[in-house]
Amino acid sequence: HKTNLSGFRFTPLVVVELASNVKEETITWLLSRIRDQQQNGGAELFAEQLGPSVEAQEKENPNVFLVGASWQRLLSGAEDVGLFKEYNDGSMRGFTRANKHNFKDFKGKVRHDLSDANLRTALQHFMPLSYFQQEKYSERAVLLRRLLSKGLLVQIFPLHEKEELKRLSFSWYKKVKLSLQPLDDIRHYYGEGQALYFGFLEYFTFALVPMALIGVPYYLFDWEDYDKYVVFAVFNLIWCTVILELWKRFSASLAYRWGTLSRKKAFEEPRPGFHGVLGFNPVTGREEPVYPTAKRHLRIYLVSLPFVLLCLYLSLYVMMIYFQMEGWALSVHDEDPTFWTGILLFIPSIIYAVVIEIMNLIYRYAAEFLTEWENHRLESSYQNHLVLKVLVFNFFNCFASLFYIAFVMQDMVLLRQSLATLLITSQILNQFMEAFLPYWLQRRRNKKMIRKVQKKRTLEDKELPLVEQVRLEADMSTYLGTFDDYLELFLLFGYVSLFSCVYPLAAVLVVLNNITEVYSDAFKMCQVFKRPFSDPAANIGVWQLAFEAMSVIAVVTNCALIGMSPQVKAYFPESETQLILWTVAIEHGLLAFKFILTFLIPDIPKHIQIKLSRLEFESLEALKKKVRSDCLVFV
Amino acid sequence: HKTNLSGFRFTPLVVVELASNVKEETITWLLSRIRDQQQNGGAELFAEQLGPSVEAQEKENPNVFLVGASWQRLLSGAEDVGLFKEYNDGSMRGFTRANKHNFKDFKGKVRHDLSDANLRTALQHFMPLSYFQQEKYSERAVLLRRLLSKGLLVQIFPLHEKEELKRLSFSWYKKVKLSLQPLDDIRHYYGEGQALYFGFLEYFTFALVPMALIGVPYYLFDWEDYDKYVVFAVFNLIWCTVILELWKRFSASLAYRWGTLSRKKAFEEPRPGFHGVLGFNPVTGREEPVYPTAKRHLRIYLVSLPFVLLCLYLSLYVMMIYFQMEGWALSVHDEDPTFWTGILLFIPSIIYAVVIEIMNLIYRYAAEFLTEWENHRLESSYQNHLVLKVLVFNFFNCFASLFYIAFVMQDMVLLRQSLATLLITSQILNQFMEAFLPYWLQRRRNKKMIRKVQKKRTLEDKELPLVEQVRLEADMSTYLGTFDDYLELFLLFGYVSLFSCVYPLAAVLVVLNNITEVYSDAFKMCQVFKRPFSDPAANIGVWQLAFEAMSVIAVVTNCALIGMSPQVKAYFPESETQLILWTVAIEHGLLAFKFILTFLIPDIPKHIQIKLSRLEFESLEALKKKVRSDCLVFV
Repeated sequence: HKTNLSGFRFTPLVVVELASNVKEETITWLLSRIRDQQQNGGAELFAEQLGPSVEAQEKENPNVFLVGASWQRLLSGAEDVGLFKEYNDGSMRGFTRANKHNFKDFKGKVRHDLSDANLRTALQHFMPLSYFQQEKYSERAVLLRRLLSKGLLVQIFPLHEKEELKRLSFSWYKKVKLSLQPLDDIRHYYGEGQALYFGFLEYFTFALVPMALIGVPYYLFDWEDYDKYVVFAVFNLIWCTVILELWKRFSASLAYRWGTLSRKKAFEEPRPGFHGVLGFNPVTGREEPVYPTAKRHLRIYLVSLPFVLLCLYLSLYVMMIYFQMEGWALSVHDEDPTFWTGILLFIPSIIYAVVIEIMNLIYRYAAEFLTEWENHRLESSYQNHLVLKVLVFNFFNCFASLFYIAFVMQDMVLLRQSLATLLITSQILNQFMEAFLPYWLQRRRNKKMIRKVQKKRTLEDKELPLVEQVRLEADMSTYLGTFDDYLELFLLFGYVSLFSCVYPLAAVLVVLNNITEVYSDAFKMCQVFKRPFSDPAANIGVWQLAFEAMSVIAVVTNCALIGMSPQVKAYFPESETQLILWTVAIEHGLLAFKFILTFLIPDIPKHIQIKLSRLEFESLEALKKKVRSDCLVFV
Repeated sequence: HKTNLSGFRFTPLVVVELASNVKEETITWLLSRIRDQQQNGGAELFAEQLGPSVEAQEKENPNVFLVGASWQRLLSGAEDVGLFKEYNDGSMRGFTRANKHNFKDFKGKVRHDLSDANLRTALQHFMPLSYFQQEKYSERAVLLRRLLSKGLLVQIFPLHEKEELKRLSFSWYKKVKLSLQPLDDIRHYYGEGQALYFGFLEYFTFALVPMALIGVPYYLFDWEDYDKYVVFAVFNLIWCTVILELWKRFSASLAYRWGTLSRKKAFEEPRPGFHGVLGFNPVTGREEPVYPTAKRHLRIYLVSLPFVLLCLYLSLYVMMIYFQMEGWALSVHDEDPTFWTGILLFIPSIIYAVVIEIMNLIYRYAAEFLTEWENHRLESSYQNHLVLKVLVFNFFNCFASLFYIAFVMQDMVLLRQSLATLLITSQILNQFMEAFLPYWLQRRRNKKMIRKVQKKRTLEDKELPLVEQVRLEADMSTYLGTFDDYLELFLLFGYVSLFSCVYPLAAVLVVLNNITEVYSDAFKMCQVFKRPFSDPAANIGVWQLAFEAMSVIAVVTNCALIGMSPQVKAYFPESETQLILWTVAIEHGLLAFKFILTFLIPDIPKHIQIKLSRLEFESLEALKKKVRSDCLVFV
């Protein structure tokens, strides 16, 4: 173990970096908080200061601390956070130290008995305790805010595990192969939230394959034959309902296997940024900042909502400029049809696609600022409001022009051209931001590392000493969560489900994009970012709702596109009213069918439902027995 | 107490009637099961045979038993079924005997510490134990089925509590007053399921009052002015969304106050009628009948579904006959317009309304038979399938003709006339079945009682002796649950929400009907039926869903009616297509708005949400403390 290499008494798990100008007594106090016995209000963890690196530079921050914990302490943390593990009889049960040996693959002192990410969750659970073991929230909050706001606490992050990471990255993205991602290993290393994202990405890619396979012959043989797309639209419509339902079941299977499905949510503490007048929490009775809901609602409905509407208006305005440019380019091409003016035809779309990406980016910052300002008490509420804001704008920004072309201009050629340009441009931009930029960063980092190694020349084996590794990881960028990754998938899902019948190649492009996405995301997780704290998610949360909303919109869009197709129009030669009424009736029928289908397909597969019921039944029986034994005592 | 009057050692709570030809040893065995100590497999309850009535007739069944329980046993039952009661600090907590004195209004030995219905629930919990304390389900099932199928077990029902009933019925329906129903008393006497029904009936009536108030001037002044109904339709549409959302909140308040909101559901045992090959339950591991789901699905999709469709087709066929009759009556009236042919115009509608009621009744029996034959394992699953079958047919049967008239024939005069006839006829029929028939039964019963009393002449005070009371109650009809009552409200809600803009008086009629309904339902609960076992419901269950589905259909219908109105048509004089597109767009917008509204309005009022979170937080904290104290033991 590295413990011996670095001379530490324990395996370091988490790095805490304080600002270099923190006073000596603050550090002493903090360390005592971390190290003290529980009865003295400490966290009973190990903590050591990181020594200077081999050629210590002056700008190097000395206040970097490594935190670890004893095996017993980690197990106790695992129990506290309500970890579920596979039991001897194959079911998933809440982990308790008392009967730890009845859990599968539990061999005593070996680190791999609990997943690596779980260990960090367990430790993370103690961390706030360690700093702020005070009873009152106010003191804790004041301390935490002071540390954060004055920049005294620079960062806390879990250390990468070089050996594990090497093994993981090899099986994940280093070999080009036709196998699935090692989801269990990803979960083991990064936690359930990450693993569910990669599981969803993989699932989504596979789900797109039938669409892509049908799309290719459409592209090759019927490029100009709009009539045929009715079949494609119908297929599209069934497809997007079914895959979302099946994903829910697949996701439940994963979450059950990983023990997050039946895990109870801990009581949610206020998020660090939350502020207000000191008062009493009506639920916990603790003293903590209180902020009136009415005031937050005022901020949401009087500031945020108008702001979002203004942004939507702006986006509409930009769209109109795009259509003017489009018209101008068309007129230039009509006057003088050369190769260059032919290329000019694509320029407005490309510019528009770039502008859309930039607007999305700027809006994202504005939305984060506004949601922060709304002062949500809970992290989940903050996330929901942020996701809602960003989703609505991104959806509008990306799809408004397509809707306008499809249903107002009713120009299918332009629609196809716009869709293709938007899709391809945004993919190129995204791949650049996600793969090439990280690759470049990685190369720069590599160079730096090599330079250091060359300066020292004492490094015999290929491994860097712990001190160097910690310094290197501290310099890595911070992973900001799966938000952007899901958002990208959401927009791609939109392109495919809403309009792919007009441009059947969309599914093919998205499949190709997703495959490179798997590799670039895996690469950035392993090499570019600091290791994130794990997030014990049981599902993809609000994104499931977002994708389902999109699939409802897709039903409406596809029905409208079918109704507008010349083939269908030919059935109602004399009366347009009849055509519209039939289209609307069928659309209502499909929507009703979709809701009934959502209702009929159980969200959790039957074999897992049985296991969950068994667990519940057993706990009920145990409760009954307890009540009966109490009877003997009290009656 | 009556205990002394009747000479019993205990307060009888439940009556068990066995067939008169049951063997003596069976009775002895059964009584020992009921009376034995728990460790001997008994239920530790009291049981006594009911003596012969004063002038014992030969046909009188001697095998009637009264069952009661000690106060401690009832408390233990209340704890076992997970009863929630108000705690000293105002919150609702799971009742435990250990700290019973910390519950509000708990004064020791008085019966009224727990609600009367709760006591019976507690006892009911022990009853199956008493008969079938065997470990294996198979034996229990065989015994229960033998008892039931051979007609050995005639009935089990709780006894009425004369004093309480008198007080309840006085405050409920005997005085004509302008006050609310005594919901808490109803819940106290009949349990939460009943009380929620009456709460819903009352809420629904009040919710209809604004509609009725708006409807009256429409009826008085604008009888022939169809144009104005646009305003009414818009109001209708908002109304039916809002009232359902508010009901959910009101219902949560009631359920919280009554302690059923946070109560955990007990594990559901198979329903008595369920049969199959003996196997092992995958959840409990017990031996019990197993019936393959695939086989049940085959029965549902290959027999029940086609049968329902056939019935719908039949209903359609009857509807067509009605329209032919209607046409024939109209032609007769046109040829010879006298007073009598004018009346003839209404005859087809009245006949059709009666036929609809008869078809509903026959279909109801068929649906019960089919659902029984589908062999559902759980009572809840049986209920859901039955409700779904009955709802679809009733909806189709009652509203198909109205839809046809409104959207195919587009004849608003006929629509109004049909609606009025259907509504009034079905109300008269229902009131007859629910109020006059019970009244007649009650009078017959009264006469019988008076005859008996006159024969004896020894009765000094007005109260009947216990023996007579039990015999009388055993002869009363059995209450079959709230199904029919909810179904009636559902159809009335349909008449009002779907088409009331055409016939604004509908709301007035429904309000009047509901007021008499309250009285007739209260009367039949108190005087006509045996007291039912209480049902600890937390909400109105599948009916909430049914009403919400109806309100979605109402949005579609009202939008279509608005789109068809001459007033709106006047805005689009040149293009019908434009009109339809706008109508559809607005309808989609309204549906989206409705869903967002459902999402935004929390189902549980905030103050109750806080109380629930506090309870959850406390149990989490308690768990943590327990874990920590375990640490001290095990580590």
